[in-house]
Amino acid sequence: MRTQPLKVGVAGLGTVGAALVSQIADQRDALAARCGRHIDVVAVCARSRGKDRGLDLKKLKWFSDPVALARSPDIDMFVELIGGAGNPAKVAIEAALSSGKSVVTANKALLARHGLALAALAEKNKVALNFEAAVGGAIPIVKTLREGLAGNSIQRIYGILNGTCNYILTRMEQDKMSFADGLKEAQRLGYAEADPGFDIEGHDTAQKLALLASLAFGTRVDQSAVYVEGISSIAAADLTAADELGYRVKLLGVAVRTQKGIEQRVHPTMVRKDAAIAQVMGVTNAVTVDVAGIDPITLVGPGAGGAATASAVMSDIGDIARHGGAQTAPFGRPTGGLTTVRKAPMQRHEGGYYIRLVARDKPGTAATIAKRLAQQEISLESIVQRHGKDAGAAETSSGSVPVILITYATSEDAVRKALAAVGRDRVISGRPQVIRIEKN
Amino acid sequence: MRTQPLKVGVAGLGTVGAALVSQIADQRDALAARCGRHIDVVAVCARSRGKDRGLDLKKLKWFSDPVALARSPDIDMFVELIGGAGNPAKVAIEAALSSGKSVVTANKALLARHGLALAALAEKNKVALNFEAAVGGAIPIVKTLREGLAGNSIQRIYGILNGTCNYILTRMEQDKMSFADGLKEAQRLGYAEADPGFDIEGHDTAQKLALLASLAFGTRVDQSAVYVEGISSIAAADLTAADELGYRVKLLGVAVRTQKGIEQRVHPTMVRKDAAIAQVMGVTNAVTVDVAGIDPITLVGPGAGGAATASAVMSDIGDIARHGGAQTAPFGRPTGGLTTVRKAPMQRHEGGYYIRLVARDKPGTAATIAKRLAQQEISLESIVQRHGKDAGAAETSSGSVPVILITYATSEDAVRKALAAVGRDRVISGRPQVIRIEKN
Repeated sequence: MRTQPLKVGVAGLGTVGAALVSQIADQRDALAARCGRHIDVVAVCARSRGKDRGLDLKKLKWFSDPVALARSPDIDMFVELIGGAGNPAKVAIEAALSSGKSVVTANKALLARHGLALAALAEKNKVALNFEAAVGGAIPIVKTLREGLAGNSIQRIYGILNGTCNYILTRMEQDKMSFADGLKEAQRLGYAEADPGFDIEGHDTAQKLALLASLAFGTRVDQSAVYVEGISSIAAADLTAADELGYRVKLLGVAVRTQKGIEQRVHPTMVRKDAAIAQVMGVTNAVTVDVAGIDPITLVGPGAGGAATASAVMSDIGDIARHGGAQTAPFGRPTGGLTTVRKAPMQRHEGGYYIRLVARDKPGTAATIAKRLAQQEISLESIVQRHGKDAGAAETSSGSVPVILITYATSEDAVRKALAAVGRDRVISGRPQVIRIEKN
Repeated sequence: MRTQPLKVGVAGLGTVGAALVSQIADQRDALAARCGRHIDVVAVCARSRGKDRGLDLKKLKWFSDPVALARSPDIDMFVELIGGAGNPAKVAIEAALSSGKSVVTANKALLARHGLALAALAEKNKVALNFEAAVGGAIPIVKTLREGLAGNSIQRIYGILNGTCNYILTRMEQDKMSFADGLKEAQRLGYAEADPGFDIEGHDTAQKLALLASLAFGTRVDQSAVYVEGISSIAAADLTAADELGYRVKLLGVAVRTQKGIEQRVHPTMVRKDAAIAQVMGVTNAVTVDVAGIDPITLVGPGAGGAATASAVMSDIGDIARHGGAQTAPFGRPTGGLTTVRKAPMQRHEGGYYIRLVARDKPGTAATIAKRLAQQEISLESIVQRHGKDAGAAETSSGSVPVILITYATSEDAVRKALAAVGRDRVISGRPQVIRIEKN
């Protein structure tokens, strides 16, 4: 065993930071046995020194400035748990990397925006920039992509990356709740923020997906290349219809290799009930990787929470204790070899579609809808039209009837054109609901 | 990038070896980008040189003796894909380790028997002994335990580690097949050997569990410390009853930290349908890890097959290319720090039990059974007694009725004593079926 412990500085003592400091102390001997040297937190930085965090910080050096901690000769490596896509997190990480220190961060927002530049800085200084905790909490997906599947050609990666959205969709499905009530429940239980937009509009998922896509496909991480659509338009009627047709609705982040390049998208998705990812309920996260030539690999686990996130941070620190800084590139390959990815135009997306229309209940309506789809060469796998209360769609008024269509693979452009034509025909009321189907 | 490629020797060119040689060639540039140096297979060894494997072996040096390959200065590291718990695999690995070469192997049988001694030899020579492919095929469970969860206290690990058994149980459940018919189907599809005993009696699972337990709990790997019970006694009636009660039956390998030490066991297990592992069907494998303080982590994927196993071997080779040999101990900790584990006496096992009896259909039978259980202080969660054809148990003769009991947590000793007493009371016919319930 090396005689010198690895001296760690931690910036940010929220729930994750506090859990991390405790865990490193609690597991000190086990970690030393597993990593070949002791790991000690020696210095910390947070906004308020007096706050009770349930930790004994007396033996740790206190910094009020994260940049000063990052540069301090007291520490061998720097853990950034401040959060936020800009400063002070960014400047602190830059300071650590520039002074030759490896960095561990859970900051998906920062990496999704500045990951490429930070990775290049780590590379230049021959140190590590690890971020297992930035995606999927305690699920070891970053390590799996960066190391476990290094010899495989990945075709697609998709996941439930936001526990808030999955919790809301689960409650809507299981308890026949509206989206608004599902959100209220999530807020009541602390799973959703008071301002839930970042989660429910899909931006949190998009940041995580951009990181996964980079690791899986060697693309330059770029959140702006991700198509994003949230779950606020999903109705209880969609979940009921999905259930009857053998599907569930999940907010997925999907990155897939297509003939036109890497497509990155976040949107509500219909997945077959027997797919591993369809079984994932509540705040749990999951990621499935499709690898050429073998069956998919799915990783499931807690996506958030102090202890789960701290577990992933610990894993990253352990790798630095074992291997030092420079041996694995942050995004799996040297930054010079990463490729630029453009935002895939969704009108060129191809796949099956779920379409829910509220049709006027009069002769010829079904024929009109069918004609418009046929004109765009869209084939239907199923069409369900139901009368009466048991149709499950509270919003249908008298004289209207819900029609659910499932298409075979077609292009989004064709679907949009067909629905525009149906709209002009005045045989439906309201806006059609369209949900993409993801094959599993 | 280091200028020297990593020169690999591969012993064994069956489906895994052949897939590996192809994959390393196909992914050469991607691997170099991901591992920091090129990886080349330069020498191979197999029994028959002339056999058509769909590979161009002309540029590779041929060895007919794996030990000679293992010792050869032509190679930097050695991949053992010969298989078998003894020689030549064992002596070849020893030769490679002794001559300072890191080894990658998929040989669970050898490691379950001689893993400790081989790990000590690797440690002495400061080289790596990696075995991701020995458990769970392409699922990165070894890396997850050794590195990803290095900072966590693991409470329990359990998994579906044998695709043959899971395939048979899936067919029995979904198609109401007998065990014999399920086995025949598995054999017809190539999922089961002509001599299926090693799989269906649980020995394959036991070998894999012994490796997982060592990685999770720091025990000295010891297959003989695993309690083993196979699936051949499971009847279609059990799967039907399980289904009605909200359970599925899976052959699980379970290693758990108890107050009496680490308990390692392989047996048919009732798991609640909503558990992640209960969703795993067919030949797919899965492992769940219970970590202190956070929700469980489950990894699902292909557990066998040439390409899936080769993928795991590639992952191990990639780590050696990146980090050299010595930085991670084979079982996660230095062998001197591993603890001896004794075989847990199953009569002291505690948990819930499923019991299926064929009771004589006469007054007082239920009261007699209930009394015997009460005498052992066993509480019942449910008791189901059904008359007539729809009971689903083909083996009940006229005058008999199936009785299904689900107990709350109790000891195995109590269950055995109660059932022995019921037997003496002559109120049942045949042998009681007993299946342990695993809490999820």
